[in-house]
Amino acid sequence: MQSRGAYRTASGLPHVDRARLQTALLTLGEIGRNPETGGVNRTAFSAADMEARRWFITQLEAAGLEVRIDPIANIIATLPGTDPDRSPLVIGSHLDSVPEGGRFDGALGLMIALELVHAFRDLNISLAHPLEVVSFSDEEGGLLGSRGWIGTITEADLARSYSGRTLRQVLQDLGLDPARTSQAQRAPGEIAAYLEVHIEQGRVLERENLQIGVIEGIVALDEYEITVTGVANHAGTTRMADRQDPMAAAARMITLVREEVYRLGGNLVATVGKMEVEPGAPNIIPSVVRFTVDIRDPSRLVLEQALRDLHDHFDSIAREEGVQVAWRTLAQIPPAPADPAVMQAILDAVAWYGYPHRVMPSGAGHDAQSIAAIAPMGMIFAPSVGGLSHTPAEFTRFEDAAASANVLLQTLLLLDERLP
Amino acid sequence: MQSRGAYRTASGLPHVDRARLQTALLTLGEIGRNPETGGVNRTAFSAADMEARRWFITQLEAAGLEVRIDPIANIIATLPGTDPDRSPLVIGSHLDSVPEGGRFDGALGLMIALELVHAFRDLNISLAHPLEVVSFSDEEGGLLGSRGWIGTITEADLARSYSGRTLRQVLQDLGLDPARTSQAQRAPGEIAAYLEVHIEQGRVLERENLQIGVIEGIVALDEYEITVTGVANHAGTTRMADRQDPMAAAARMITLVREEVYRLGGNLVATVGKMEVEPGAPNIIPSVVRFTVDIRDPSRLVLEQALRDLHDHFDSIAREEGVQVAWRTLAQIPPAPADPAVMQAILDAVAWYGYPHRVMPSGAGHDAQSIAAIAPMGMIFAPSVGGLSHTPAEFTRFEDAAASANVLLQTLLLLDERLP
Repeated sequence: MQSRGAYRTASGLPHVDRARLQTALLTLGEIGRNPETGGVNRTAFSAADMEARRWFITQLEAAGLEVRIDPIANIIATLPGTDPDRSPLVIGSHLDSVPEGGRFDGALGLMIALELVHAFRDLNISLAHPLEVVSFSDEEGGLLGSRGWIGTITEADLARSYSGRTLRQVLQDLGLDPARTSQAQRAPGEIAAYLEVHIEQGRVLERENLQIGVIEGIVALDEYEITVTGVANHAGTTRMADRQDPMAAAARMITLVREEVYRLGGNLVATVGKMEVEPGAPNIIPSVVRFTVDIRDPSRLVLEQALRDLHDHFDSIAREEGVQVAWRTLAQIPPAPADPAVMQAILDAVAWYGYPHRVMPSGAGHDAQSIAAIAPMGMIFAPSVGGLSHTPAEFTRFEDAAASANVLLQTLLLLDERLP
Repeated sequence: MQSRGAYRTASGLPHVDRARLQTALLTLGEIGRNPETGGVNRTAFSAADMEARRWFITQLEAAGLEVRIDPIANIIATLPGTDPDRSPLVIGSHLDSVPEGGRFDGALGLMIALELVHAFRDLNISLAHPLEVVSFSDEEGGLLGSRGWIGTITEADLARSYSGRTLRQVLQDLGLDPARTSQAQRAPGEIAAYLEVHIEQGRVLERENLQIGVIEGIVALDEYEITVTGVANHAGTTRMADRQDPMAAAARMITLVREEVYRLGGNLVATVGKMEVEPGAPNIIPSVVRFTVDIRDPSRLVLEQALRDLHDHFDSIAREEGVQVAWRTLAQIPPAPADPAVMQAILDAVAWYGYPHRVMPSGAGHDAQSIAAIAPMGMIFAPSVGGLSHTPAEFTRFEDAAASANVLLQTLLLLDERLP
C-alpha cells in the first residue's frame, strides 16, 4: 500500500510553524477563559462559543478558505483540490468546551487544521482532493454536529436546552431551519477520509514517554444503572443477621467490578461514578441503592464477556444478601474502529519523523466515532501532561502539538496520493 | 432484694383490661391516620399531634389525674400517693410519630400508663409513691421532652422548625415561656424510678418466640461521616492502574465495616445508610465519596474497639488506593444502663406471670436514655410483628401489649414497696 516515500522539501521533512500554531492555540484559549481559575468556559452555543466561532471563521477566511455553516451549525471551510472529481479529505474537531475546561480539548485539532492550511500555502503544496476543515457543533454535550452528519439528530436533541434556549431556537437565531437538520447528513462514500488530532486525556503516552498515539479505534462504551433493592430497617434494632441490606450488597458488587476488570485485563476499564441511596438517612438501613457502571473496551466481545460475568456475580451476591438486583441500560455505544488504510498512512508518517509512538485505543468518545459510520476514519493523539483534561490544568506541550501536526500533514499527503 | 411475693387479687395475679387497652390504642391510632396508607402522621406539634395531646389530657383527667404542662410542653399527670414524703414513680412515653409511622411506637407506653391508672382504681390499689404519667414532647425529633428534664435544651433546639414554626413559637402558642425551658429540669434524686414500655422495633423477641424483653440498657451510639478523597478523572482514558478512585476505596471500607462487626460479634451493629458522590456522573471517576457509619453496642468499650479497628483498616485501604480518608463525628451518645434494682423488679414480675422473656439491650434510642442520667431507669419491650416499625405495618399483638402492661403493673407494686 505504501506507494512512495515521505514528502520532502529542499530542507528535508516538512514541519508546521510551531510558533504560529502556539499563538493560535493561546489566542483561542483566551476566548471564554475565566481570569480567576484559568478555566475555559465555551459550552456549546454560549456567548463565548459564539465568539470563538466568529473568530475561527475569520481565521479560516483569512487563510483563503470558503466557509459555510451546515444545517446543524457545523462550520465547514473548504480548500479546493486540483482534481474536481475527488471526494474531500476532512480534518476537524470542536470549539466547545466543558464548563471550566482547558485550552486543548477540541481546540488542538482545529488549530492544527488551520495551521495545515497555512503550511500547505507556505510549502506550495496543492492536494488533488478538496480539503475540508470542520468544526463540529456541541461535541461535549453529545457529539451533536457529527451526529448531524450521520443523520441521528432526534426531536429530543432539538428540544434540549442550551443555557435556556432550545436547540431549535439556537438554530433559528443562527438563521438555520430546525426542520432541515437532516440535510446536514453526508452520504456514505462522500468523504474520502476523516482525520482528527485530539489530546489523549489519559496518561498512557506520558508514562511511556511517547509523542504520538495512533488510534486503532474508539472503544465500545456501555453504561448501566444497577438498582439493588433490599428492606429498609432500623439501624439500631435490626440484628446483622436479620438484614437485607442493599448497601452491603452494592459495596461487594462495586469491589467485584474492579476485580473482574483486572481479571480480563487488556484495555478494559470500568467506573462507578454515581450512587443514590434511599431513604438515605444515617440511622436507617437503606431500602434501595442505585449505582452506575460505565464499562469500555475496544472489543465488543470483551465487553460482553465482562458483562456476562458481572451479571452472574451480581446475581450470586443478591442471592446471598437477600436483595434484588436489576440492570437498566443507559447507553450502548458500539466500537468505532479506525480505517486500516488511514491508520497505516498515519503509521508511515510517524515512522518517517521518528516520533516515539504507540498504537492505542481511544477510551473517550469523539466526533470521529460518528464519522466512522460513513467514512474511513483515523485519529492521532497528542500527550496530555499528567493525563489531565476537562480542567483548567489541561496542557499539551507545544512541541508535541507540532509533532502531531507534522504527522497529520504527511498523512494527508499520503492519503491524497493513495486514495482515489 | 425480693421483699415479698407477687401482688395477687382474690382471683390470682392481676391482669389489666386487655379490651380497654386495645380500644385506647386503636382510638389514639386514628388520630393523624392517613386513610389511604394507614400511616400515622403525628409529627411533633403538628395539628394531629396537638389533637392527640388534647385527647390524652381528656383521658387522663377522666381517669381522675391532675394534669399539667411543663415548660418544655411535656404532659404530666399525677396520681397522688398515700405517703406525701415519697418521690414519684414515673411511667411514660410519647404521642408523636414519624411521618407515615405506626400506631404503637410511643403510643403503647402511654396507653398502658393510662390503663394502669384504670387498673389500680379497679383493683382498689393505692401506691405509697405518687405516680406520674408523662408524655414527652417530640421524641422522634431528638428526645426533646426528656432532654428538657435533664436540662440539655439548647438555643438550636428553640430555633428548630416544626412545620414552619420555631420551637420558640410553638411554646408561645401553647402559653409557655420559651425563655424558661430550663425550669422543666428535674433534679437528680427527685424521681424514685422511671419505667417505659415500648415496642421492640426489631425481630429478636419474635424470632425466639418471646413476649417480653427486659432491657439491660440502651446502647451507646456513634455516628460518623467518612470522607474519602481521590482524584476525579476520565472514565474512559484513565487506566485502572492510574486511578485514585474513592468509590473503589469506599466499597472496600463498607464491606469491611460488616466484617468487623461480625468479627467482634455480640450485640454490635453497624450501618451505612447514606452516601454522596462528587461529581456524581457515570462517566467520571469520583473525586470524593462521603458515607455515614452508624455503630451501636451496649458497651462503650466494644464500640471503641470496633472504631479503633475500623480506623486502622480504613487507613490501610486509603494507603493502598492512594486516597485520603477523614472521619467527622456526627453523634456520640453514651450508653444508658438500666438500673439493676429496677431491672430486677421487672424480672421478678415477669417470672411470676411466666411470660417467656429475655434480657436484651435496646438498639434504639428512647426518652428513657435521657432520664437514666437523673433517675433509676427500666424498660420493657413488647414484640414487634416482623420487626417492623416506623411504617403503617407496625403492629404488636394485643395479648403481648397486655402482657407487658401486667408486668409494668407488678413492677410498680414491687418498686412501691422496695423503694424509699
